[in-house]
Amino acid sequence: MSGTRRSRVGDPAPWFEAHVFVCCNRRPDGHKRGSCAAKGSEALRDYMKARAKEIGLKGIRVNMAGCLDRCEFGPTLVVYPEGVWYKIETKDDVDEVLAVHLAGGGRVARLMLTEAHVPPPKEAPPG
Amino acid sequence: MSGTRRSRVGDPAPWFEAHVFVCCNRRPDGHKRGSCAAKGSEALRDYMKARAKEIGLKGIRVNMAGCLDRCEFGPTLVVYPEGVWYKIETKDDVDEVLAVHLAGGGRVARLMLTEAHVPPPKEAPPG
Repeated sequence: MSGTRRSRVGDPAPWFEAHVFVCCNRRPDGHKRGSCAAKGSEALRDYMKARAKEIGLKGIRVNMAGCLDRCEFGPTLVVYPEGVWYKIETKDDVDEVLAVHLAGGGRVARLMLTEAHVPPPKEAPPG
Repeated sequence: MSGTRRSRVGDPAPWFEAHVFVCCNRRPDGHKRGSCAAKGSEALRDYMKARAKEIGLKGIRVNMAGCLDRCEFGPTLVVYPEGVWYKIETKDDVDEVLAVHLAGGGRVARLMLTEAHVPPPKEAPPG
């Protein structure tokens, strides 16, 4: 479902041109799904926020978020309204998303999550 | 700028049909901007997540988020990809957003933030 289909005539103009959410959920060490914070997402989020300001990006907000539930493919972020997801593991990855996607309107294909990035099914509760 | 303008041919299909972010930022008591958590947003987020599951909404995720920077009008949430913002103060407000917007595809006009909901300008740093 696209933003087009969900948007309605009369909706206010977008408040942010692009709104980035970086998963900062932390699970206990050894959890089988892992977690983005355990893979360094908090520092990457701080770096992304600072760099966005340094390079003068306007209309962009970089927020931390709770568990985005694609833990196996993290550290993850999602850019709205376009709903494009990335795996960001290094500061270089963050710089590339900032430059190519957020500043340039392009896509960083090597880092994008696709429909194939599906977490394993949840186990049924015991009993 | 709409989702249409930002979306590109070849982008993966949306991972969530609707992705809700509830501001759970907490500032110290007495901060002049206030904060959403100080106005009860954490409990409202927990309620929203639980109710979305109870009423069987599919394809919807309700996440906590860091400061969405519209503190004066909070507790705030934003629904993407459509980028519609609400002020939710009570469980009844949450129920209405769930029923009318997320389940029904409509809008809860009385709770929506508009372009007129602009925070006061930031003060220049001292010195």
